[in-house]
Amino acid sequence: MLGQLQDTNARWIAEQLVSMGIKPVEFASVGDDATHIASTLERLSSSVPLIIMTGGLGPTEGDLTRAGLAQALGDAIVRDDRAYAELDAKLRARGRSMTDAQARQATRPAGATCLSNAVGTAPGLHAVLPVTARRSTPCDVVCLPGPPNELKPMWTSVAAGLLRPPPGQVIVTRLLTVVGIAESDLVKRLGPLMLRDRSPLVGVTASDGVLTIRIRCEKERDAARSRALVEADAAEIARQLATHVVSDRGVPVPAAVIDMLRQQTRTLTTVESCTGGMLGQMLTDVPGSSAAYVGGWVTYSNEMKTKLIGVDPDLIAEHGAVSEPVARAMAIGGLERSGVHAALAITGVAGPDGGTPTKPVGTVWVALANRWSIDGPITVDARKLSIPGSRADVRRRAAGAALAMLWFRSASGSQPMDQSMPRLLWESASLAPSAPV
Amino acid sequence: MLGQLQDTNARWIAEQLVSMGIKPVEFASVGDDATHIASTLERLSSSVPLIIMTGGLGPTEGDLTRAGLAQALGDAIVRDDRAYAELDAKLRARGRSMTDAQARQATRPAGATCLSNAVGTAPGLHAVLPVTARRSTPCDVVCLPGPPNELKPMWTSVAAGLLRPPPGQVIVTRLLTVVGIAESDLVKRLGPLMLRDRSPLVGVTASDGVLTIRIRCEKERDAARSRALVEADAAEIARQLATHVVSDRGVPVPAAVIDMLRQQTRTLTTVESCTGGMLGQMLTDVPGSSAAYVGGWVTYSNEMKTKLIGVDPDLIAEHGAVSEPVARAMAIGGLERSGVHAALAITGVAGPDGGTPTKPVGTVWVALANRWSIDGPITVDARKLSIPGSRADVRRRAAGAALAMLWFRSASGSQPMDQSMPRLLWESASLAPSAPV
Repeated sequence: MLGQLQDTNARWIAEQLVSMGIKPVEFASVGDDATHIASTLERLSSSVPLIIMTGGLGPTEGDLTRAGLAQALGDAIVRDDRAYAELDAKLRARGRSMTDAQARQATRPAGATCLSNAVGTAPGLHAVLPVTARRSTPCDVVCLPGPPNELKPMWTSVAAGLLRPPPGQVIVTRLLTVVGIAESDLVKRLGPLMLRDRSPLVGVTASDGVLTIRIRCEKERDAARSRALVEADAAEIARQLATHVVSDRGVPVPAAVIDMLRQQTRTLTTVESCTGGMLGQMLTDVPGSSAAYVGGWVTYSNEMKTKLIGVDPDLIAEHGAVSEPVARAMAIGGLERSGVHAALAITGVAGPDGGTPTKPVGTVWVALANRWSIDGPITVDARKLSIPGSRADVRRRAAGAALAMLWFRSASGSQPMDQSMPRLLWESASLAPSAPV
Repeated sequence: MLGQLQDTNARWIAEQLVSMGIKPVEFASVGDDATHIASTLERLSSSVPLIIMTGGLGPTEGDLTRAGLAQALGDAIVRDDRAYAELDAKLRARGRSMTDAQARQATRPAGATCLSNAVGTAPGLHAVLPVTARRSTPCDVVCLPGPPNELKPMWTSVAAGLLRPPPGQVIVTRLLTVVGIAESDLVKRLGPLMLRDRSPLVGVTASDGVLTIRIRCEKERDAARSRALVEADAAEIARQLATHVVSDRGVPVPAAVIDMLRQQTRTLTTVESCTGGMLGQMLTDVPGSSAAYVGGWVTYSNEMKTKLIGVDPDLIAEHGAVSEPVARAMAIGGLERSGVHAALAITGVAGPDGGTPTKPVGTVWVALANRWSIDGPITVDARKLSIPGSRADVRRRAAGAALAMLWFRSASGSQPMDQSMPRLLWESASLAPSAPV
């Protein structure tokens, strides 16, 4: 509540609920205060039949979910013998003994049941708030541990099985991942598809130059018809946006790029300066990325650019490290030293310091050295970006632009290098017309 | 609301409010539904004097914050001439013309005022919900754009100035960053400091092996006394935890490591396999990191381990890529090829595939090659980790453990290499006793 922690559980749980046909209507976060927890349960349970809570189940005095739930139920807190035995065994296996604080985790409101925690020590809870004057239907309350690595297994193994999705309620969603087009241009192109009273509902969100188009159908009672409607919209959007569509299944850009390279049996390396390894990190986030990505270099200092991948120091002295010739030399050096098909290089001024009048913070050169076969000719693309925002923004967007560049080049097949590659967002020459508006 | 987007604004705004002495009591997220937005405003405004809203101010039909606020105010929506002129000028400068959808952004509830958006096109809003039967004091409502890169500048330049922190209310907080100790051990050590009814309140959260201790004083009316109390607790904790305290100002581990290396005028390189660049990315996240971090290698494939940093292929054949000898060879190869003081190497099985009975998913070797002067003797530490969790967990925690290893080695000064380095979390030999319980 004080801004020291980032909650990621609400988003994850909502995603799971939607996939089961249950539509979340509100997220509420409250502080460590049993009375506030209880009154929030009272309020929400008067309008919805299911509440999922997370966190506050641990051993400390600030863990007040049990107390809040007990208050809402009007129950006393009692020890759960089975949970106590399980916790005791778990602690013994770790060579520890039960403390009073830890024992608190094996307690529950009298009317609740404990849910086993396969990973951590705090059991979850399940209870039903009964019908009252203000609550016309019973409300299920499921309490899960806060740490995501405990919450997720408990959800899968126990909690999801407790839920009773409304019969006949169907929510079909579909995500498309789109690059190289500004949000306002997309809205203009898709026009009537995006009207608010239309079903399926089509929406778009933008993040770091990647657009996510969301198609959602929840008005139909028939699952097959819902799916067909969503399918038809996805196909129409894919037709209109052509190679801008990186995935019609919401696959993130790095995974889509890896997948395309794998299909082409091509390999990739990276040579990073201002992004410092972020591009490699994004690529290796993808399970199985080793089939296409071999690794690369973080040439953060000028000396490393020369020492590791042979960038001519005179080139750096003449043009500066953030320049087209250096970006090209980094890409070519990486390609030749690793013997792969494609090399992405990034060099830029991420800030907050280091900007100059001619190369302000946000100036980034991205280069792609590409060949279709290992002994084939090498072609090099280079683009200059002018990225607005913070150091983190510049770095993320530079890495994203590099991936988009590789996407368009790879998607074009072995066509001649012409104007076929769309402009990248934040590309300097086109900053005015293609910047997000 | 459907789990497709992660909200990070609530945390950020809470942090800003706390720094101004305003204590957040609830976060609420509701769907794109004007009536639900209005009823949430009604409910919250009956108990608090300030509501900050984010998002829903854009040009699409799903942007319903204006409509929800108008409903709560009982106002019609009108065009704001100044906002319209500003938007028109902004669009013209980008070579675009005003569409009906865009014009909607220059409208507001009649009783609200528009707040200029320096970055994007959607103005913010400010309104006051008046006293009613259910609302005993007026409630300020401030609406900010959803994109963080628009929200933050608007907060700083306009919104923060609209708030009126309660006179005399003081919240003093302090964060300590701690590594190499399990949460349960910490709770045991700090014992009485962490009692719930104590002021200042001391809490702890754990994330990927890093503990954050939060000290908070809000009961005192006197700012100087609050600060002194918090200071005294911070000093006591720092004394008890010694080198486990990476920062007594909440500085994240990578920044603290960079800072220590800078103070020691030492330099660092990285050689990453399973983390694929993440360690470099974490280090270069820190502004000014180039003073200590020169860059490094992502030796993702075995071939790259041999080709780029000279790991003997026989070593890989004999022991496997995830082994102590290979981790050591990676660290030494990196140190020698870059000519720096310290080289961190990581090689592991991040999963989900690639695990074997003897090297299951989560097996990671971390090695540190270290010298106190460039021509001094090289010593190498290597630790084996058994990290539970997903691919992302394994990667993040492996990178974190590597940083912790460098922290302890650097903090020990040029003392002889002995048992002075504490065990790392997830270290295999000590998995049972030191794993988080």
